[in-house]
Parts: sequence; structure tokens; C-alpha cells
Amino acid sequence: MPESPIRKLFPLAEAAKARGVKVYHLNIGQPDLPTPQVGLDALKQVDRTVLEYSPSDGYRSLREKLVEYYAQYQIRLTADDIIVTTGGSEAVLFAFMSCLNPGDEIIVPEPAYANYMAFAVSAGAVIRPITASIEDGFALPSVEKFEELINDRTRGILICNPNNPTGYLYTRREMMQIRDLVKRYDLFLFSDEVYREFIYTGSPYISACHLEGIEQNVVLIDSVSKRYSECGIRIGALITKNRALHDAVMKFCQARLSPPLVGQIVAEASIDAPREYHTEVYDEYIARRKCLIDGLNRLPGVYSPIPMGAFYTVARLPIDDSDRFCAWCLGEFDYEGETVMLAPASGFYSDPTCGRNEVRIAYVLCQQDLQRAIRVLGEALKRYRREVMGEE
Amino acid sequence: MPESPIRKLFPLAEAAKARGVKVYHLNIGQPDLPTPQVGLDALKQVDRTVLEYSPSDGYRSLREKLVEYYAQYQIRLTADDIIVTTGGSEAVLFAFMSCLNPGDEIIVPEPAYANYMAFAVSAGAVIRPITASIEDGFALPSVEKFEELINDRTRGILICNPNNPTGYLYTRREMMQIRDLVKRYDLFLFSDEVYREFIYTGSPYISACHLEGIEQNVVLIDSVSKRYSECGIRIGALITKNRALHDAVMKFCQARLSPPLVGQIVAEASIDAPREYHTEVYDEYIARRKCLIDGLNRLPGVYSPIPMGAFYTVARLPIDDSDRFCAWCLGEFDYEGETVMLAPASGFYSDPTCGRNEVRIAYVLCQQDLQRAIRVLGEALKRYRREVMGEE
Repeated sequence: MPESPIRKLFPLAEAAKARGVKVYHLNIGQPDLPTPQVGLDALKQVDRTVLEYSPSDGYRSLREKLVEYYAQYQIRLTADDIIVTTGGSEAVLFAFMSCLNPGDEIIVPEPAYANYMAFAVSAGAVIRPITASIEDGFALPSVEKFEELINDRTRGILICNPNNPTGYLYTRREMMQIRDLVKRYDLFLFSDEVYREFIYTGSPYISACHLEGIEQNVVLIDSVSKRYSECGIRIGALITKNRALHDAVMKFCQARLSPPLVGQIVAEASIDAPREYHTEVYDEYIARRKCLIDGLNRLPGVYSPIPMGAFYTVARLPIDDSDRFCAWCLGEFDYEGETVMLAPASGFYSDPTCGRNEVRIAYVLCQQDLQRAIRVLGEALKRYRREVMGEE
Repeated sequence: MPESPIRKLFPLAEAAKARGVKVYHLNIGQPDLPTPQVGLDALKQVDRTVLEYSPSDGYRSLREKLVEYYAQYQIRLTADDIIVTTGGSEAVLFAFMSCLNPGDEIIVPEPAYANYMAFAVSAGAVIRPITASIEDGFALPSVEKFEELINDRTRGILICNPNNPTGYLYTRREMMQIRDLVKRYDLFLFSDEVYREFIYTGSPYISACHLEGIEQNVVLIDSVSKRYSECGIRIGALITKNRALHDAVMKFCQARLSPPLVGQIVAEASIDAPREYHTEVYDEYIARRKCLIDGLNRLPGVYSPIPMGAFYTVARLPIDDSDRFCAWCLGEFDYEGETVMLAPASGFYSDPTCGRNEVRIAYVLCQQDLQRAIRVLGEALKRYRREVMGEE
């Protein structure tokens, strides 16, 4: 199992705080925005006397409510297509365990969410990366690049759309290219779409479930964590119209007995959050995105594409080594008693030579803090380049 | 992945209910007794605005409270020895994933909890069973039987104590034999002790954590599910004093981000359940155990040892095939509009020839229902032997 490069920074962050330094956390995917009140209220209304097992695939009432939710996005499902999981993480793990044998390969455009790699290792499978580049705004690499990697061990393609860590949103044309590949080579398409609420451009959201002719190949990975700011309740979903795969996944579900009961109650209630909840959250992210991206691109030598969705961006910094820089920010730097914690992009690439001068920045702080954090980052870059890199 | 023999019975049970037949569920490990009020109240007192991720190893406050809990059983731990997991199930999975490579073997006395097998398959490991027999009351098989199976792929021994499905409690002498084996061959000892509250004889509870000289080898699997009737909150624990193992398990924990937040709040509160809660639950199980075992042993041809702990027994029935009998009870039998659902013991043995005439019976029904269920079982046995087995 690989260790996350960001986890290695935690002791440094703790030490900085112990020295009295304020740390702006630009490294995490934990929204600071509130959980919907209807979700919080649901906790207070639990009137059971036994907190018992739920069905292994989750309560039917939740799955039926999710059917309505997906219908808003023109994703047509029945409750039997949905398996409730313990977070999106378990959905990825069970998808891999059910679809992949040891040695099987999946193709993943990188940079990519680091834990996919951990789940692939758990399943004994191999991730074959295709590198998307910051120069192209992290667009989908060409079909030829995929085809170069396809061999008789290739079982699937994994995408995250909108993307963590880049914020990229695949276009209709790109999604059709993926569809054609999946169909031509009869692959699984694992599509992690947990950020669909967070799309900031006029571009349409094309779900893997919208693609015609590959209905049996698509495995949708989902979670309520981000859309309702409910990361802690651990409720996700694995969605497939492939009955054989559904039944295989259910064996893993039955072995772990059931997803969390209370989380399901909260998630089900949260689907009824009023429109204003989503509007407020959305407007706030729009404002933060502008604040962050404008601020970053004004710093000398820094470049960030404009993310179309999610609440992250991958930015290029004028540095030699982002692992070293991120550690230095925490361990050896402060500006007026403050510093920043960033996620080195090395954690999002399989190839250790990729992303050496990139970092992932999450905009899960209020605008005032974001502005201040960008100021601190600018000072850190100046000082790092002078003191560590020896620039004039 | 194997499919549980008991899961195959579910559609038959549903169909029986749809025909209006009342089904006594003697097949499940879901206690009917209430969750402690302090646990239920904790839900109503959650005053957070964001249901955020918890630490990957669980809240320190819960782990510190668990340290006090274990101290009552003379298990001396620090909070850093405890990793909070998503149910005991995840603790077993992560223990196997962290300790075992594909092809590695663990020795498991059978009959055993069926899902261990599923988690071993997930880790690519192999379970080597040793059969305990009903004639010996399911006592630990001899040391020689273990030694016959030990080879250079053997990495551990797994026990469940008190035992699901047999209710057996390992004696001090048996635990010392296990200790000596573990020490001699430098094995891991995976010890699932989730039923420690439910020990009904004067015999002492010997935890794997009490065994001297193998502190680095022991992996304790635990869960609050049974002791507080909180199966649904999915809070368990993996406990080890082996730092290298702890760190390996943490990589899996970090990949799945965090255990359920709300469950941790409920579990932490439940540790403060008043003594009367435990006394009432305990007295109820004592009474049910007597009711069930007396009743079973009065049925012609039926034999059940007296379980010393947990809330199950494995009974021998005068039948040819328990899978067939259990399916027949649901599909083709009723007595005055009622029938019973039992767990065929075939699900608890690797060898399909073992346990053909055994069933697991859980005493998670009130005494009145248990008495009635035994009456119905007696009628089922009479009719099955006459109509299906062709006995006079």
C-alpha cells in the first residue's frame, strides 16, 4: 500500500500549530459549509429503540428517494440499480473487487484522486495512468493514448467527472470518445461523479449514465459527502444496470452486513433540502473560485487553469519540488505568524517525475481566508525561491 | 466470493410471509433488545452544523473511553493501540489485508462465522479449517491438529471467543495452548471477542490480550454492535500493540477516509450505559438460553450442547440435510400458520460434508416466542421425517 504524500505532512502541520503558527488548510476536501438543516433535524427525530442492521444494499426508502434525485439529472434508474455503500470509498473498493482479478488493469487519466490507487492495490489490480497536462487545462488525453495502453489484461477505464483534483469537466465530445472506447473494447467504465452539484460553467454535465450503448458497462460511483457537506456520515452508492455485477457486488455488501443506519436516515432527509440551500452553496463556491483563481494567477510565475467544477484546482508553481516546498511551508516558514498547507501533486500521479511543480488547492475556506492564504503563499514562494532555490 | 447459504433462504422467507405465514427468525444475530437510552439520547444532542470527516482512526475521545472500558476486563491499552473501524467486519478485513499476502494461510477452528471466509477471499488468503465437533461440545481441537496444518505459508490463527456460532468459551488451558502455538511458530492471533458481555457460566473470560509473550502477535477484533444492540451504527475496533501492523492498517483506514461520525458519538455515549442496562440484558439472555436449550433437548433426536456465551447454539437435528430442511420449513411447511427460519450449519464449515445435520439457532426472540418456535420446530421435524425422509 502506498502512503499518501499529504499524510506525511500532517505531523509538520501539527508541529507548526504547536509553535503558534496559523495554518490555512488548502489541502483538504472537507467542505466547511453547513449540512442541510433537514439532515441535522433528522438526527433529533430518530425514534427507534434498537439501532439495528439495515439491509445490505441500504434502505429501499433511501434508494427510491435517490431514484428521484437522479431523475433531475436525466439519469433514469430503478431502486434495484442502486446499492448504498459506506461512502463513495466503499463503492470504489467493491467495484474493483467485483470487476477485477489480480493482475487486471484499469486505465486512469492522471492527475487522479490518490485513493483509487489504494483500492486498486487492495483488489490486486494495476492502474495504468494516462497523463493529462496542465498546458491543455487537463483535458482528456487522446484516444490514441488510451489505445496504446489497452491489452488483454485491460478491464476498465476510471474517470472522475467533474474531476478531483483538477476541477476539469469532460465535454460531450470527450465523453463520446470514452463511450466508443468502452464499447469497442468491452470495458467497464467506472465513473466517479460525486461533484455533479458543483459545475460553474454553462457546459452540460454528461454522466456516464447518459451514454447510450454501454449501459451494461457503466459503474457509477457516488456519495452524499460533498453535495450535502456530510462527509462524516459515510453514505455513498454504487450504481449499475448490470445484474451479474450487481449480484457480485452484493456478496461483498453482505459480508460487511450493512451500511451505516443513521447516515442513511440523514442522507434520505437531506435529499429534500430546499433549493435555497443549493443556491447558497453554489454561489459561495462560484465566488471562492473567482477569488482563488484570480489571486493565484496574479502571483508571479504561478499558473492555474480555470476549474469548471468541483472545489479544487491544480496550479503550477515556480518551484523545484512541491513535496519539498509544501513541507518547507509548514516546517520552516511563516509570514506574520501564518502559513499554508497545500497538497503536493505528486500524490495524484503514478509517475514520480510528474507534477513536481504542481499542487492541489481546495477552496473550502471563506473568501477572506482564501485571500489571506494567497497572500501568504505569495510570500512563501518569494522566500523559498530566494532561500532554498538560491534565486536572486 | 462464496454466497452465504442463509442468504439463499431469504426469498423463501419473503414468500412464506407473503402467503401469510408467521416466521420465527432464529437465524439472525440482530439482538431485539433496546439500545441504551444514553446512546439514543446522544443522537438528539448532536449540535454540529457540519457532519464532517472524523480522524481515520476514529475520535480520540472515543478511543480514550474505550481504554477505560477494556480496563474493566483487565485489558491494558492506550488510545494509540485502538483503531476505530466501520464495524467489526472492517476490522477483520483490514487485519487480513494488512497481515496476509495472497496465498498466505490462516487456521480457523470450525464451525466459524461465515464472513471470515469472504474477507479472506478479499485478501487473497486461504482459510485452513480445523473441525471442532458437537460431540466434544465444540471444544478447541488438539494442538496436534493445528500443527498438522502449519506450513511455511501459515501466518495466523483466527478464533472467535465466545464463539459465534457455537457459543463455546475457550478455557484458560485452551487459550494457553493457542498462545504456545502462536509463540512457537510466530503467527498472528486474530481474536474476535465481540460477545465478551455474554458469558453465562462461572468460567473466566480469557482474552487474547491477556496472554503473555505474544503481545506483538495479537490482533483483537471488536465491535459495539452486540453489547449495546447497536448493529446499525457500524462501529468496531481493531486493536494491536504492534506498531508496524498499526501503521499498515492505518493506510487502509486513510484510503477509506473515516469511520462513521454519528456512530462514534452514539458508541462513546453508550459506554456510560448504567449497570442496570447490562444486568437486564444479561438476565434476559440467561433466561432465554435456558428456555431454548431445555426446549431443544426435549425434542426427540435433537441435541444441543449448552452454550457458555454469545447468543447462539449449534444443534444437531434428526435430519438428512439441513440446507434442504431449512428451505422446506420456509417453502413447504407451516404449523397453525407459523414456521421457523434457521441457519443451516453448512455455512459455517468449509467442508461441504460437515454439519449436514446441524443448524445454528440464535436466541434473539423473547421467551414466549422462543417457546412457540421450539414447538413449531418439533412439528416441522416430525413432518419432515415422515413426508420427506420417508420415516415411519
